[in-house]
Amino acid sequence: MARVVVDVMPKPEILDPQGQAVARALPRLGFSGVGEVRQGRHFELDVDDTVDDETLAKIAEGFLANPVIEQWTIRRVDA
Amino acid sequence: MARVVVDVMPKPEILDPQGQAVARALPRLGFSGVGEVRQGRHFELDVDDTVDDETLAKIAEGFLANPVIEQWTIRRVDA
Repeated sequence: MARVVVDVMPKPEILDPQGQAVARALPRLGFSGVGEVRQGRHFELDVDDTVDDETLAKIAEGFLANPVIEQWTIRRVDA
Repeated sequence: MARVVVDVMPKPEILDPQGQAVARALPRLGFSGVGEVRQGRHFELDVDDTVDDETLAKIAEGFLANPVIEQWTIRRVDA
């Protein structure tokens, strides 16, 4: 088994109200020095060694992300 | 400015219905070989160089994650 991480983020041109809410709240809460905050989703998949990168790309594009408004990265990590 | 990534995941003992839904759907959709899937949140923060690791830890624990049910990792990456 291998561990695969897929990070899905709103595209840069897409508004991110959740991230903006965090960014606006931090100064109020006493934390300065944080500029932009963007929030996305983080997936961890345990996959058999037989699952190739092409299959992972299809899974990410088709089922984990919305390609119209999101971008994503796929990386294999040590389990 | 530095880029900081915070990944927030449900603790291992916490059920993750969203991840389970993905894991159960994949075989139906023709993708075999994927075992467990867990879903969390991925934050990207642009922070001034004056923001130290202790401050980042407080922000993550207090405002990005729910320490009762979630665990998180903080890492600095190249912007």
